[in-house]
Order: sequence, then C-alpha cells, then structure tokens
Amino acid sequence: MKPIYVGLCGVGTVGGGTATVLKRNAEEIARRAGRPIVVKMAANRDLDRAREVCGSDVTIVDDAFAVVNNPDIDIVVELIGGTTIAKDIVLKAIENGKHVVTANKKLIAEYGNEIFARAQEKGVIVAFEAAVAGGIPIIKALREGLTANKIEWVAGIINGTSNFILTEMRDKGLAFADVLAEAQRLGYAEADPTFDIEGHDAAHKLTIMSAIAFGIPVQFDKAYLEGISKLDATDIKYAMELGYRIKLLGVTRRRENGIELRVAPTLIPQKRLIANVDGVMNAVLVKGDAVGATLYYGPGAGAEPTASSVIADLVDITRLHTADPEHRVPHLAFQPTQLADLPILPVDEIETCYYLRLNAQDQAGVLADVTRILADGGISVDAMLQKTAGEAGRTDIIIVTHLAIEKNVNAALAKIEALPTINGKVVKLRLEHLG
Amino acid sequence: MKPIYVGLCGVGTVGGGTATVLKRNAEEIARRAGRPIVVKMAANRDLDRAREVCGSDVTIVDDAFAVVNNPDIDIVVELIGGTTIAKDIVLKAIENGKHVVTANKKLIAEYGNEIFARAQEKGVIVAFEAAVAGGIPIIKALREGLTANKIEWVAGIINGTSNFILTEMRDKGLAFADVLAEAQRLGYAEADPTFDIEGHDAAHKLTIMSAIAFGIPVQFDKAYLEGISKLDATDIKYAMELGYRIKLLGVTRRRENGIELRVAPTLIPQKRLIANVDGVMNAVLVKGDAVGATLYYGPGAGAEPTASSVIADLVDITRLHTADPEHRVPHLAFQPTQLADLPILPVDEIETCYYLRLNAQDQAGVLADVTRILADGGISVDAMLQKTAGEAGRTDIIIVTHLAIEKNVNAALAKIEALPTINGKVVKLRLEHLG
Repeated sequence: MKPIYVGLCGVGTVGGGTATVLKRNAEEIARRAGRPIVVKMAANRDLDRAREVCGSDVTIVDDAFAVVNNPDIDIVVELIGGTTIAKDIVLKAIENGKHVVTANKKLIAEYGNEIFARAQEKGVIVAFEAAVAGGIPIIKALREGLTANKIEWVAGIINGTSNFILTEMRDKGLAFADVLAEAQRLGYAEADPTFDIEGHDAAHKLTIMSAIAFGIPVQFDKAYLEGISKLDATDIKYAMELGYRIKLLGVTRRRENGIELRVAPTLIPQKRLIANVDGVMNAVLVKGDAVGATLYYGPGAGAEPTASSVIADLVDITRLHTADPEHRVPHLAFQPTQLADLPILPVDEIETCYYLRLNAQDQAGVLADVTRILADGGISVDAMLQKTAGEAGRTDIIIVTHLAIEKNVNAALAKIEALPTINGKVVKLRLEHLG
Repeated sequence: MKPIYVGLCGVGTVGGGTATVLKRNAEEIARRAGRPIVVKMAANRDLDRAREVCGSDVTIVDDAFAVVNNPDIDIVVELIGGTTIAKDIVLKAIENGKHVVTANKKLIAEYGNEIFARAQEKGVIVAFEAAVAGGIPIIKALREGLTANKIEWVAGIINGTSNFILTEMRDKGLAFADVLAEAQRLGYAEADPTFDIEGHDAAHKLTIMSAIAFGIPVQFDKAYLEGISKLDATDIKYAMELGYRIKLLGVTRRRENGIELRVAPTLIPQKRLIANVDGVMNAVLVKGDAVGATLYYGPGAGAEPTASSVIADLVDITRLHTADPEHRVPHLAFQPTQLADLPILPVDEIETCYYLRLNAQDQAGVLADVTRILADGGISVDAMLQKTAGEAGRTDIIIVTHLAIEKNVNAALAKIEALPTINGKVVKLRLEHLG
C-alpha cells in the first residue's frame, strides 16, 4: 500500500516531536491508518537540526514553499506558528489541493473562516486538533463525540503556564511576581509571558471551541480577556476559605440572545473535578443538553503530547479523505452553509456569579449600605465573609453573589466605591458553579 | 437533501432517549450531519409505548426483523440487549447491507470478532460508542484521538452502580449490604445486581477498550473478574488512612508477553483525579507513550447520556459512510488484517502493587516473620500500618507492596497464613498508582 507522504513545515519543538513519534511508532500507526505515514520532506531555518531530527531519508530544505509545491506531498503539516508565513503556507497548500494539519491556534482563531472556506472549495481537509489543549482530543470530542447535543457551555483550563502559576500561588501562598519568576526559571513561562498570563493563548483556544460548540464563525476579536497578573494572593486565600479555587478559566456559553466568550480568573467550587486540575495540566468541561457534563483532561502542551494530536489528524485524513467532501466531518462541526449568526455578547451583558472583596471601615451600618445597593441593583447575595484586615479599624468583606448581569454589578460597585466607608476599589472576580 | 432513515430495534430506556433527543435536537443534528436523521420505523414489544415515544410519523411494529428487512432503512439501531435476538438482528442488518449502531456491550465483547468480520465483508459500519461508558466518547478517543500512541494501559471506573455503592460505603462508613439495599431503593441497582457488582458489566466494557487500545480481538472469556460484594468497610477506612481510595477498577495493560485484562476493587492514590470520581459517574484514564495520561469523565448510563453516544454514531455514519470501506476507521481501531495475537495473561501473571491486611497476635516476632516471607518471595514493602484491632491481643497489620507478580504474592500469602501467629485469611487487594 502506497504510503501517505507528509511535508513538515517547521521542525521546532512540536515538529521534532512529530517526526520522532512518527518514526518510533511507525508500525503501530500504519496498523491503525491502513498505510504507512512517512515524512518525506521538511522545511526548517536550522537545516542541521532538521536533518538530525528527521533522519537521512527526509529531504531537508529551508523554504517551506518548496514543501507545499512538491507534488509528491499528500499532507502539509504547518508548525511554523504565527499568522504571516504560516497563513501563506496553509493557503498555498490548499490551493495546491493538499490536506493540511496545523497546531496553530492563533492562525485558526483569527483566520479560520477564510482558511476553511478555501479548503471547502478545494475539497481538502484542514485539521487542527493540536491547536487546542495539546494532547487532549477535545476538538474531536466536540465536533464528533457530542453531535447529538445542544451544547450549553464549554469551560476550560487551557493555558498550562497560568495554571502552574495559580497552583503555586495557592500551594505556597506566594505573590504572582515571585511565582512567575520561578516559572520562567523552570521553563514553564516565556521570557515575555504576556501571551500566556494575559489570556491571549487561552482566548485563541476558547474561540475555536466556541465556534465548534455553537456552530458560529471564529471571532477572536470579540473575545473578552482578563489575565492573572493582577490577581492578589489574598483572594486565592479567601476563595479557599469559601470552598473555591481560582483558575484562569475560558468560558463560552450559549444564551438566548448570543454567545458569551471570555477568559478570566474565575472561582470554581473545590468539589468539582476541574477545580482540582493543577500544575501545567489542561482540562475542558462541556455541558450538553443530552449527555450532561463531560470532562477531558490531559497535558496541554509539550513536544510529544502536541505531536500526538498532530499525528491523530494525519491518521484521520489517511482514513477519511476518500469520503464525499460535501458531507464529511465539517471543519467547524456544522456544515459551512449552516453556521449561525448569533452575536458574541459584550462583557457587560454576561451573566455569572461574582466574588467581591471590599475594604471597609469597621463601623456600624457599612454592611447595611452595601447590601442595600446590591439589592437595589437586583443582585442577590449567596454568601458573605467578614475578615479582620491588617490595619486597625478596617475590615475585608467578601461577598459571593447569585447570578447577575455584569453591567448591573459594575453599576452597583460604582455606588459602593462612592460610599465614604469603603476604601479604594472593590475587587471583582467571576464565579462559575459549573453544575 | 434526502434524510438518513433510522430503524430503531427496542424502545426501552435508551431507545426512548434516542427518539426523544433526535426529535428535540433535529435541527442542530441536521446542521452538523449535513442532512436530517429521522426515525422511520421502530420495533418494540410494547407497541403503545413505542407509539407514544416515537410519535405518529414513525411506523411501529413488534417484529425487529421487519425493521432490518425494510429497504428504506439506512441504519439499524439495536437497543434490544442480550446476545440472542440482538445478535441475529445485527447480523441480518449487516447481511442486508445496512449500517448498525448498538449500545450492546455484551454483544460486542462476546461476539464482536464475528460481527466485525461480517461487516467488513459487506462494507458496512457497526458503531458502538454507547456500549462503553455511556455518554463519554471514549471509543472515539481511543480509536481516533490517540492513534499516534502506543497505548500502555487503560484504567476505568466503568460501572456506575458499583461506584455509587463504594462512594456511599466510604462517605457513610456503611457495610456493603446496607448500601446495596439503599441503591436498589434509589433505582441505582437492579433487583438482581450481580451483573454490576461482580464486575461482568465492567469487564464487557474493558474487553472492548482493550481490543481497541492494543489491536487485539475481543476476548471477554479471558478477562479476570472480582466484584465488590466481599469488600469490607474496614479496608476502605484503612485505605483512606494510607491516602488511597478503593474503586471497582477495570485495568488493561500491555506487557511484553501479553495483555493484562482485569476488573477488581483497587486502591488508587487519592491525589489522582480519577480517585475523586464519585457516585454513579464514570471515568477512563488512558496512558499513551506520546501523550502521557489523558482522562475522560462523564455519565456512564441513563437514557439521554447513552442516547448522546448512539446519535453521535448516527452522525458519524451519515458523515463518513461514503469513505472507502477498505480504509475508513476500522471497527477495532486497527485494520482487521493487522490485529495482534498477544495473549491475555492469566491473573497469576499480572504485575501490580498490593494492599494486604493481616490479623496477627500482638506478640514479638510476628512482623519479622511476615516481612521475611515477603522478602524471600521477592516482594518489597512500600508502606506498613499497624492498628489495634477490636479484640484484645490481636492487631491488624496493613502492608502496601511495590510491584510484584500475583503468583508470587499468592505463594507468600499461603506461607503467611500458615504462621501460627496469623489469624484467618489475609485480605488481598490490588493497588494501582496510575502515574
């Protein structure tokens, strides 16, 4: 049986893992796919590294377009990253009638609509399991495993760096900056960690899952992002006292009038399995109307876990590229003519529970004023905790609300902050029960 | 676009759920599948129930063969259960060139090899996601999501009834018999609970996962089964003191000389996510050489969760039945000509850690005798706990071992039980670190 020939564009961490696993498990993979899957050509700036990783049977070049234009290549694997050359490579591969596998979450979240439209015209598959949650086959679960369901929401811990930092802050009671420095030393955080800690990376992944869950185009520009760099260790401690953990959580939820799409530090009840996903691990919890809640857990990054997803896509294409292109698994789970135009809701319109921390003068009437403002704003209180703060005559008040609309909470907080008995800004975090 | 016409054989709990969800989410499902998926005919002994559930557009009959022989039916859904008429129905559907979806774990675990061979000859698909772990898309994950990996082991909590009973025993400190009675009252356990509590149901599911993970034929008759009915509340308590939970765990592991395939009450470190899967929920943990450990969690039974998997299979077939039958996703993940003949190892040959509870006379030298016997048998001790038992002059000794071969442990236990200072039989439970 003729092998499937793969052209690798980019032989960095994931590209190296892909070449290594394809070689190591060649027999196992061929037994599953029905034919060998072989890297025939690889493009990399560092030719020596590519030669070392891929071995002497593979043609090594420094120009990715040479791979894409090689008529012997059946599937192009794009592992260059970014949205400039990577986008050109993917579009050219499609134009040349080649199937594409990519791990590029930014590319799919920002240019997926254009890429999938071109792929559909050409009858080729663009697969991207590795773009979300590394080795966890969550795209497959959402796109194929849960097709019976109206998906209600998806919630995910989908950035390992942030989860590592939050886990260390909680376990060791350290401040954000100290843990970040440690994470950088250990190689879990980049020298410039912005992309991870401010939620961009998680929002790219969430955008893709949202499109697949609800049958809407990818709309990364409408996602709301809030990172963990301003998170105070005090709130992690108070959250624990109340029975919650704080995670950088991506949440996308179907509401009647639109879709919520947001990444933010979020309280989750400690009793939920997902609240106990620690360190660099990832997990995604999906709520469907028929199945209820299902959870998918595993390593969200790393050479071989990500390669695991890249190769699963290669096997999928090998097995299924002969299916009628008009009806096989659609890129975004829903047939391209059947996408919905439900809008992404602005953050003001989201509905969730809230954790509020106020610093107040320790005197009679403060609580009455605060709870009156909340009640007037239609915000009902689920739990309250009053703590003696460090400074004399001041106290921390922690309030957990029931479901409320964000703009109503913001309006109430403006009034609370204007009270003479309240010191400074109120800390506001979102809280999800995920029940 | 012409609908896909489904024939439902059996309109019980899962059949009812399937008809209900197909109707409720018809639009969502058609947007995903590319065409409507419609129940056209249903067979059930209770015609009135079938009419009520399926609605007036569906032809209701009492003979399942009328469904299978109807030329208008594209996919037959077998939800009758058992292995007599269900097997005939499935084989006849295949003979008639129809695709089949089944939730019947017993049928697949015991007759899968024959059924898949016939389906292969006829170029039809037999899909069975609902047969393992209810609504969790674990078959898809193993068969398609993890194809890059040499799977090392699969461990699952895959019987909700047993997990409910064990959770209650632990939380309330109750004996097995008391909790079973409660579970029966709540409808979580059958009047005759043997199938669930003695591990048959879990072993059926594990047999299927083992075949898919390792590329071997289904071999239910070689599975080792040990249920929870003899489990003592004392051991649940001691396990917790040592940092473990006891679960009815299905474990299948690839060893050099064969495959382990066993269901038994098993200690798991409390810090593992899977140890915290409680109540009727299911979870499967899979270790692959490239991806590492991934976990899949959700409801393992119930009308709509199981229907979720049945319908996912219907959508899959709708999307993919046009792919070349020689190369599309193989029933057991590996191409039918590429199954391995690795034997299932007898239980004597399994290698795992052990929890041992001895009741001993509280006198000098007992521990020395016991540890000498273990050492002579090549069994090394990981942890030990000595407890004052109820009766004067007696003490419980709990020993946790490192990895050992079962027959060596049994030989050592025979010698230990022969010691004059040891009372009665030693309790032996298996222990998995799942790291």
